[in-house]
Amino acid sequence: MTDSAPPSPPTIGVFDSGFGGLTVLRALIERLPAARYAFLGDTARLPYGSKSRRTIARYAAQSARFLVNEQGADFLVIACNTASALALDAIQDAVSVPVLGVIEPGAEAARAASRSGDVLVIATDATVQSHAYAAACQARGLRGIEKACPLLVPLVEEGWTPSPAAALSFAAQAGVAPPQGSQGAQVAVTAEVIRIYLAELNAEAAAAGLHPDTLVLGCTHYPLLRALFERAVPPGMSVIDSAEAAAQAAVRIFNTLPASFGSPLPSVLAPPQVVEIRCFATDSVEKFERLGSRFLERPVGKVELVDLGG
Amino acid sequence: MTDSAPPSPPTIGVFDSGFGGLTVLRALIERLPAARYAFLGDTARLPYGSKSRRTIARYAAQSARFLVNEQGADFLVIACNTASALALDAIQDAVSVPVLGVIEPGAEAARAASRSGDVLVIATDATVQSHAYAAACQARGLRGIEKACPLLVPLVEEGWTPSPAAALSFAAQAGVAPPQGSQGAQVAVTAEVIRIYLAELNAEAAAAGLHPDTLVLGCTHYPLLRALFERAVPPGMSVIDSAEAAAQAAVRIFNTLPASFGSPLPSVLAPPQVVEIRCFATDSVEKFERLGSRFLERPVGKVELVDLGG
Repeated sequence: MTDSAPPSPPTIGVFDSGFGGLTVLRALIERLPAARYAFLGDTARLPYGSKSRRTIARYAAQSARFLVNEQGADFLVIACNTASALALDAIQDAVSVPVLGVIEPGAEAARAASRSGDVLVIATDATVQSHAYAAACQARGLRGIEKACPLLVPLVEEGWTPSPAAALSFAAQAGVAPPQGSQGAQVAVTAEVIRIYLAELNAEAAAAGLHPDTLVLGCTHYPLLRALFERAVPPGMSVIDSAEAAAQAAVRIFNTLPASFGSPLPSVLAPPQVVEIRCFATDSVEKFERLGSRFLERPVGKVELVDLGG
Repeated sequence: MTDSAPPSPPTIGVFDSGFGGLTVLRALIERLPAARYAFLGDTARLPYGSKSRRTIARYAAQSARFLVNEQGADFLVIACNTASALALDAIQDAVSVPVLGVIEPGAEAARAASRSGDVLVIATDATVQSHAYAAACQARGLRGIEKACPLLVPLVEEGWTPSPAAALSFAAQAGVAPPQGSQGAQVAVTAEVIRIYLAELNAEAAAAGLHPDTLVLGCTHYPLLRALFERAVPPGMSVIDSAEAAAQAAVRIFNTLPASFGSPLPSVLAPPQVVEIRCFATDSVEKFERLGSRFLERPVGKVELVDLGG
């Protein structure tokens, strides 16, 4: 390489226990289209939520080292709420590159959005049990009220979600009924599940004398339901997509770290001809390939199987 | 012990990867109330469905040995569709007592019920992918059409099911709307999910020129939804509860094996003062205790944590 050769774009490693974190990758690509991406889903060992903190830390550290040492990641985004809640320190100890989780950016976006200081957080059972969002809210002077919504991940994985086009239409015309037919009936079920969960959560907040004005979607599967949430929340309530928030935080970190990457920002921000994405999984490549494109909103391509050991 | 002492009742070991198999235990207790019961949920290592056949066989064999060697089980019921589908041989090799799975009894009950020979089977993704029900149907001259219904287990675990009293009312008055309020709205969601799945399955069967008249509930969580299924199926369609079918098969086997147990049948069939149940789990004792009583329809009592190793 000569002195005049343009610096190669940095590689951003994105890690999740499954493939929900592809929503974070999608949000990153939108903002940093010229970076290279390596995504790892530790699908052989999911769900992380039912495992001990020590085990999760070991799995997440192994995964982070794979992305940094074997795939050359210059920057890591932990696109997994459970790993962000329980293993961010262990990951930072395991690798020498900057590491960003999804929980702090979500709480930070809630702080920017909320006027009342009362914030609703919905997430998986494991994330809620960790109380990581409540702690991140409290550190910012917010009151966070968390609720586990275990039906939403299976509804997303079943595909009972609005199509992207329908989602745009919902967002533009709040109050319009979803399309009919089998897909319409499926989406109506998901909308009703969301209505029930939000009614329970709002009743709980009201009973505690709180006035929430912000809802954090604290799970990387939930961005596929964002349009339904935006229709379901009371008027004036902001919906924070933690995948979007994490991607915005990644851009801010990039802006503070240009020297580390040989001033790559111009090339990172300019749209390339082809976005370079390599996807890896430790198991379930078939399900990853089948569902991944819905999360990423583009083909995931061939997913490579990797063995990280026990 | 003198020659005249009454023989002690046999111990029936019941095994599941989780606690859904408590529906099988409930059906066994109803028919064999004087037996002793030891139930093991291998909750630390669930879900079995995403693991390889070899790993499932190893876990199931360890679990079976625990029930036989440490808890003195004289008879084993594998109340887990995945383990029944993939590891019945390995379990039979691991222990010297009779072993009964849930799949063959379900298929046998379908054969007794079906006139057309066309049978619908709904189950988890893992059970459907094993095609164990289709094979068991085929061996009996039936055509089995399988469908994975991944939303039903989380709906049951969330408790979006009719209460037992409501279930009786539904069964008695088909067509009557479920109770309203939050619980009513939740049960209505579950009923709609069942309607959608059955409509898809019936459309698939019709497209293949089949005339199904029997529906097998091929998952140990589904008995809690039986009343909803009975309301949702077309008129004249039989609903086979594989938990009930397995318990009936266990009684038949007991009737052929009285000598093995020192003629215990009279005491097994006579209602005792107190049903003796010991429950064990390898993890998640809290969730087991919280949800188990809904599956068992009586308190599960204190669940003991056991360590079966890796």
